[in-house]
Amino acid sequence: MTLDLHGKRTAPTLEAVAAEAGVSRSTVSRVVNGSTQVRPDVVTAVTAAIDRLNYIPNRAARSLANSQTMAIALVVPEDTTRFFGDPFFAQIVQGITQGLEDSDYVLNLQLASPSSPSAKTIRYLLGGNVDGAIVVSHHSGDDFFTTLDATIPVVFGGRPYLPEQHINNFVDVDNAAGAEMGARYLIEKGRKRIATIDGPANMQAALDRSKGWGRAVRAAGMADDLRAQGDFTMASGASAMRSLLEMAPDLDAVFVASDLMASGAISVLRERGRSVPGDVAIVGFDDSSAATSGEIGITTVHQPSRQMGVEMASMLLALLRGEHVERERIMPTRMVIRDSA
Amino acid sequence: MTLDLHGKRTAPTLEAVAAEAGVSRSTVSRVVNGSTQVRPDVVTAVTAAIDRLNYIPNRAARSLANSQTMAIALVVPEDTTRFFGDPFFAQIVQGITQGLEDSDYVLNLQLASPSSPSAKTIRYLLGGNVDGAIVVSHHSGDDFFTTLDATIPVVFGGRPYLPEQHINNFVDVDNAAGAEMGARYLIEKGRKRIATIDGPANMQAALDRSKGWGRAVRAAGMADDLRAQGDFTMASGASAMRSLLEMAPDLDAVFVASDLMASGAISVLRERGRSVPGDVAIVGFDDSSAATSGEIGITTVHQPSRQMGVEMASMLLALLRGEHVERERIMPTRMVIRDSA
Repeated sequence: MTLDLHGKRTAPTLEAVAAEAGVSRSTVSRVVNGSTQVRPDVVTAVTAAIDRLNYIPNRAARSLANSQTMAIALVVPEDTTRFFGDPFFAQIVQGITQGLEDSDYVLNLQLASPSSPSAKTIRYLLGGNVDGAIVVSHHSGDDFFTTLDATIPVVFGGRPYLPEQHINNFVDVDNAAGAEMGARYLIEKGRKRIATIDGPANMQAALDRSKGWGRAVRAAGMADDLRAQGDFTMASGASAMRSLLEMAPDLDAVFVASDLMASGAISVLRERGRSVPGDVAIVGFDDSSAATSGEIGITTVHQPSRQMGVEMASMLLALLRGEHVERERIMPTRMVIRDSA
Repeated sequence: MTLDLHGKRTAPTLEAVAAEAGVSRSTVSRVVNGSTQVRPDVVTAVTAAIDRLNYIPNRAARSLANSQTMAIALVVPEDTTRFFGDPFFAQIVQGITQGLEDSDYVLNLQLASPSSPSAKTIRYLLGGNVDGAIVVSHHSGDDFFTTLDATIPVVFGGRPYLPEQHINNFVDVDNAAGAEMGARYLIEKGRKRIATIDGPANMQAALDRSKGWGRAVRAAGMADDLRAQGDFTMASGASAMRSLLEMAPDLDAVFVASDLMASGAISVLRERGRSVPGDVAIVGFDDSSAATSGEIGITTVHQPSRQMGVEMASMLLALLRGEHVERERIMPTRMVIRDSA
């Protein structure tokens, strides 16, 4: 305990420990959370500061007071239209629900705004209302979420877009390798002019998929300039496809960074009288129900979305039990061949 | 305070007040929640019992202790497949989110199991973790939810399926009148053999829509025996349509209790070479995006789902402010004419 200006006893904060040890707030957090990524001499300095100030991390304090909430927040920084519109999320939520079924934790799903969480969401998450959080669909600018693990254990669905060298726990696929495989499949089918439709530039998965496509086409001696921007919605896939057809009427294939965008792209191609896969071959990403609900099945890069949800839950439960976890869990992707390529 | 068997002071329960006043638990709850539906002499008896026992309702106790959670639970007793599969829910959630936007409350979405909530969900909702709850898609057997308002204010989306004379707050449409309008539209179009596809028999909205269809066909001198059972999913609409075609190959119209089931029914009709609306006219219910996402637009009974979500939020916020609210808020329906009838 320390004394404040009025002589009242106040609990020392994470900031006070950071100042005392001469390190950043997130370093203290990493030590408190048992990270193995902190230099031993830093761990010693932080531990000593914690002892001197008699600092009790929030989580431990809650646990000592026996007031665990037995609730886990699932935070999805997306608006309801995108959350309900993309079947990818349904599979993730199913997996997380399944992963928590036999635990004592209830799942609180919270839809946050896409750019950054509202003040009330921040207050709620920091206010001791949940024991841990899973954050799915992280965008750059959401720096709050990447530092939330100073307060409660956090697992990300998809590698977060990092503002700095803060290390977060996450479950993901190798998006670059998956996209490279998807684009290479088009090359092996003899396609010569291969475009891509990217996801939003403020999401790590989208950047990585774009990178993987670029690697594949350059390795085949093709240009990597045929790209249009989408935002993972069907409408954005349609409008990106229109731009690509203007840029390069002779394109014969598109690697699209999500199945939902791919289904938008396919409907534009059909409107324009281009056959799929005859004139233009399409490869998507996700293998969500969007790949099978349209008129032609979409050949796609499968990611095990449901199983990823299960893994997110299991990683968070391990953290809540105080166990050591590997901070990164990378799941396998594979090609699923249907009609579009 | 009262003394227990060991002479320890314990807080009096709602049950103790009910016993003292000689009324039911739910009557005490209604008085505590300021219902105007309780006879004045009963209010006096309950108030006297509360005074004698020095009973503090949970909510007031929490408020006195200044430990409001500023969280509202949205409980949807459906599995994730149905929750994500029926666009009706997306519109409701959008409306509720919109209705809470300017409030200080965060929304905790909880998917409960369809039959009855799990022990951990019950523990969570009764454990002082939320200040109020909205329950959407209530089924018979979920008696827990209809008595939850003894503990926290509760608003139902859709009139709950009531086990007894417990009065709940709800926002709904007049499902029977809406369905009657839908069936009458088919009669006015000259259809002679009009079937229906019902929703699940453990949901009040489904029973009411079935009743409305029956009223319309009987009033036109037609038989009310052409009915098949669905569960509000697309697959169930398809399979109910197959049964109806076996029962009555000469049917020329179907009133279907949801758009999603109607889209399943339409795909079966087309597979069997029946034209819609030429051979068989279809009227759905909801006016959700399922009515416009298929190959032909579905003529349907519109319910203002999004606005109903807004009203649920606003009713609950009024209850949380301690204001008097009308316990039933019935919203208007109207026909939306598209291609299927």
